[in-house]
Amino acid sequence: MCAEALDAVVRGLYGEFSAFRGTGKVADYIPALAEVDPGHFGVVVHTLPGHVTACGDADVLFSIQSISKLFTFTMAFAGRGESIWKRVGKEPSGTAFNSLYQLEAEAGIPRNPFINAGAMVISDMLLADYPDPMAELLAFLHRLTGDESIGYDQHVYQSELEYGMRNASLAYLMKSFGNVQNPVDEVLRFYFKQCSIRMSCRQLAQATQFLANQGMNPLTGRAILTPSQTKRTNALLLTTGLYNEAGDFAFRVGIPAKSGVGGGIAGIIPGQLSVVTWAPGLNTIGNSQLGIDFLEEFTTRTGLSIF
Amino acid sequence: MCAEALDAVVRGLYGEFSAFRGTGKVADYIPALAEVDPGHFGVVVHTLPGHVTACGDADVLFSIQSISKLFTFTMAFAGRGESIWKRVGKEPSGTAFNSLYQLEAEAGIPRNPFINAGAMVISDMLLADYPDPMAELLAFLHRLTGDESIGYDQHVYQSELEYGMRNASLAYLMKSFGNVQNPVDEVLRFYFKQCSIRMSCRQLAQATQFLANQGMNPLTGRAILTPSQTKRTNALLLTTGLYNEAGDFAFRVGIPAKSGVGGGIAGIIPGQLSVVTWAPGLNTIGNSQLGIDFLEEFTTRTGLSIF
Amino acid sequence: MCAEALDAVVRGLYGEFSAFRGTGKVADYIPALAEVDPGHFGVVVHTLPGHVTACGDADVLFSIQSISKLFTFTMAFAGRGESIWKRVGKEPSGTAFNSLYQLEAEAGIPRNPFINAGAMVISDMLLADYPDPMAELLAFLHRLTGDESIGYDQHVYQSELEYGMRNASLAYLMKSFGNVQNPVDEVLRFYFKQCSIRMSCRQLAQATQFLANQGMNPLTGRAILTPSQTKRTNALLLTTGLYNEAGDFAFRVGIPAKSGVGGGIAGIIPGQLSVVTWAPGLNTIGNSQLGIDFLEEFTTRTGLSIF
Amino acid sequence: MCAEALDAVVRGLYGEFSAFRGTGKVADYIPALAEVDPGHFGVVVHTLPGHVTACGDADVLFSIQSISKLFTFTMAFAGRGESIWKRVGKEPSGTAFNSLYQLEAEAGIPRNPFINAGAMVISDMLLADYPDPMAELLAFLHRLTGDESIGYDQHVYQSELEYGMRNASLAYLMKSFGNVQNPVDEVLRFYFKQCSIRMSCRQLAQATQFLANQGMNPLTGRAILTPSQTKRTNALLLTTGLYNEAGDFAFRVGIPAKSGVGGGIAGIIPGQLSVVTWAPGLNTIGNSQLGIDFLEEFTTRTGLSIF
Repeated sequence: MCAEALDAVVRGLYGEFSAFRGTGKVADYIPALAEVDPGHFGVVVHTLPGHVTACGDADVLFSIQSISKLFTFTMAFAGRGESIWKRVGKEPSGTAFNSLYQLEAEAGIPRNPFINAGAMVISDMLLADYPDPMAELLAFLHRLTGDESIGYDQHVYQSELEYGMRNASLAYLMKSFGNVQNPVDEVLRFYFKQCSIRMSCRQLAQATQFLANQGMNPLTGRAILTPSQTKRTNALLLTTGLYNEAGDFAFRVGIPAKSGVGGGIAGIIPGQLSVVTWAPGLNTIGNSQLGIDFLEEFTTRTGLSIF
Repeated sequence: MCAEALDAVVRGLYGEFSAFRGTGKVADYIPALAEVDPGHFGVVVHTLPGHVTACGDADVLFSIQSISKLFTFTMAFAGRGESIWKRVGKEPSGTAFNSLYQLEAEAGIPRNPFINAGAMVISDMLLADYPDPMAELLAFLHRLTGDESIGYDQHVYQSELEYGMRNASLAYLMKSFGNVQNPVDEVLRFYFKQCSIRMSCRQLAQATQFLANQGMNPLTGRAILTPSQTKRTNALLLTTGLYNEAGDFAFRVGIPAKSGVGGGIAGIIPGQLSVVTWAPGLNTIGNSQLGIDFLEEFTTRTGLSIF
Repeated sequence: MCAEALDAVVRGLYGEFSAFRGTGKVADYIPALAEVDPGHFGVVVHTLPGHVTACGDADVLFSIQSISKLFTFTMAFAGRGESIWKRVGKEPSGTAFNSLYQLEAEAGIPRNPFINAGAMVISDMLLADYPDPMAELLAFLHRLTGDESIGYDQHVYQSELEYGMRNASLAYLMKSFGNVQNPVDEVLRFYFKQCSIRMSCRQLAQATQFLANQGMNPLTGRAILTPSQTKRTNALLLTTGLYNEAGDFAFRVGIPAKSGVGGGIAGIIPGQLSVVTWAPGLNTIGNSQLGIDFLEEFTTRTGLSIF
Repeated sequence: MCAEALDAVVRGLYGEFSAFRGTGKVADYIPALAEVDPGHFGVVVHTLPGHVTACGDADVLFSIQSISKLFTFTMAFAGRGESIWKRVGKEPSGTAFNSLYQLEAEAGIPRNPFINAGAMVISDMLLADYPDPMAELLAFLHRLTGDESIGYDQHVYQSELEYGMRNASLAYLMKSFGNVQNPVDEVLRFYFKQCSIRMSCRQLAQATQFLANQGMNPLTGRAILTPSQTKRTNALLLTTGLYNEAGDFAFRVGIPAKSGVGGGIAGIIPGQLSVVTWAPGLNTIGNSQLGIDFLEEFTTRTGLSIF
């Protein structure tokens, strides 16, 4: 599909779906997120040749929340390789995204790196690998986007810390099994800072280009992951990137993606493009409802699925 | 990749992996399966233009077991459309393939159509849709393969019936929730007959061509599923086709596939080819160990993954 | 407490609690039970010296349902001794009375003989021990009560059979683990016949005298259980006799007892008396609500608890 | 049974069972407990008239661990009455004593006050009720025993704190459900101090006299609990006092009791006596193996069971 045609389809769909702004329910487990205007809606499609179609609130910063798990995972996978799988699995969780049950039954090994427990284990690895892992993560995002303004939201971070009892419970449980090596407080602080990073659809679409591009950052020409690692990361995103809705999302949309409770979804069509949507209203599972609906129609109309 | 090059890669890999014949443990939950020679190894790659590379025991008949779920699902999805999702889910199971736990917690709705409970619900649908669903299933396979010799193994069927207590337990549990409508005995008999169907790698690679071909049976030029349904079926296979190992298989191999405890694996690369392996030795999760190892190397060397 | 005083307390309490007839919800999982008039209320207190206080519907026959588990357990324990504990546990279930979860997690060994799964294992034992175990059970009840009219209700039995899918699921699961040895159909038929036995409060209070009397049937002077076995059976009733409400019942009432969804409760005060209540309205856990309320006040006013 | 006869039975049994000193495995989840000599064995029987039979290591101090739950529960029940049941249940746990599963499934309400989670909720109550609850608890024990030397072991306390990740996980989980109101750190510190209290068999047998004595402390003549509360506490001990072994203990021994991983067991025969054993070797469930064996034989020979 040529750039003009793709551009027209995206803009047309954006217009159609704008009528449904405000669908779903804004995350309210922390006060700082509950304040977000549910009417926001942004879409960016960024093709490998570098053509960008940006619609609506494409440049408004939002809390990327669990989309950050994609970047911390990439750092750990790039740095440690296959050895990370001793401490975290590759399978869908099959239950709610913060459930303690499987974690207990499986001796503190989280199901995959894209659920909260898994991302905390990844955080624990990065705490061991870098003297200042948060600075390293931000520097990584700066290199991926060419934009050094990306940072995290202190207000959201403090709110996460205050209401993060359940994540503390997960972290202590994993520590009791020996799968968290740093002090739980440090792991939680780093983890909540990641969740509080603010980015726009445009920045995220740029930052995820390497996953569409066999692992190479197009801005620098440097490899972030090997082609094989990239393919594997995309496979992992497809099976586990949308919490307990991964199967339904694969069925309806059919592309690797990672969602966050801030309402963002970052999707990849390998070899073709990255696509990011932001609409804060969530469905009952915690994924952006308008985002999923838009993406389903996007892959249907363009025929751009991986299947 | 041209046919000759693909042919060479497949034959080369077959030679390399033949050294590992007998790896894993033959299924022994029923006596009839335990008798199979663990040294068998067959591979068939069947491209959309119709080029077939067949290696080793490519024409030996084996018990397709859960690969049959792919065909019964297709019949139900083609016949009933999206309404089937009221009675069966689309999510990975997250636990052992015949676990009662999730089924009980989720009120008799199986996680997906490719675990035993889900396939029994699909069987229940087909019992309502056809006067003789087993004849219909075999006729479907005959049309897909152009081979009317395909049938089921009475010996395996009787063995399944005799040792099928756990499946009976699942079926009665679903009936108690109202999600099985026909008598449990009829559902089990039909289900066990499906599992007992005997096919070769070559036949299976032909029978699954429609999934690589946007839903069209290349032998007849008739649509089995719509292109959209085909894409969705492939997505479902990727997230749920290998029981509790779906995530790892997607990560390592990266293609939609369905496995069976008979040691077969049928994989699809949409738009390109179907690939079937048979090696009876299973890993601890119940999937063919040599088959998975072969397929991982096959997608790595050819670069033919969907990601 | 002398007979006259006890008599007065029981009659007084019966009068007070009669105002609450109809409390709770009659069991409706099978049509035959749903037809029962919720206004019934009967109480019998039967002391060891043989003094009987009977109030209200003390002589109306009702479906004893799970109270039958007490008698089949006694037969198996008397006949097989401690060896029964290889196939059934002694611990409270901790979940709903027909849950499959623990049964699966614990390899087909039911938590105790007073939940459905446990009583089916006991039934399986009796099927092995007697050519006609149902005739044997009725003969046992005839000896305990001196009343040969006791039988089971064909209408309830047929209804149980028809709606017994969940029990069938439990039985097949246990058979898959090897803990049911007879055909599942036979076990279910025997089990459902037990549940369908009809007795009155007066008959039940007579039939359970041996548990207050160190194991001896006062009508015949013959030992049913040894004193040690009797003590142990009473302990088991206290910890497991009221399904998932055993702890609360022990806390509030403080005596060994067995309940049934027909609305009956049979309680024991070792060395003193048996007490039986019948009121068909159940609480949310499936135990007679008025029965529990009456028994709590009965043990409070008389001081006749075991603690 | 007269005091002399009881004395003789206890001494005889102590002699017989001394041969099995060292049975079981000393708790090793914290280093401070693992250091205890497994050969210790102490028994004290303390009758209501005040006759004490003390054998072996009856005066050696040991870590009472979970037996402390009995005293904190009593303080909360005496102070708050039935309102405590809104935040903690009365049912057996049915799973391992520190399992997160039921706690999550039941929205942060622990099954009963004698599992770790329940005792932490009780601790949270006492933190709200007293400015210095640890001082209050020790003062309570001083009043119950007439011995002001009772304190806690700093070494064990520090060890508990250091290895208490799993309890921290439980506490944070309950806090996420709103069932812990004080800071988790404070709850844990108070909880671990309780566990680290050191007492002898003789002191414990004195301290639990009120449970045999309808709630009255015989040393002071003052009521700790009402007779009704005492009866209920004993019932609760019977159904939940020995973790996941409560049913088996009731079956074999038949008396209310509380155990600790330090190897102590404190039992009550209402209206008659208290009995305390200490032998550090635990069975696989975490209860003193020699203690249970001794108590079974003790109630069998004396006939002093509640059933």
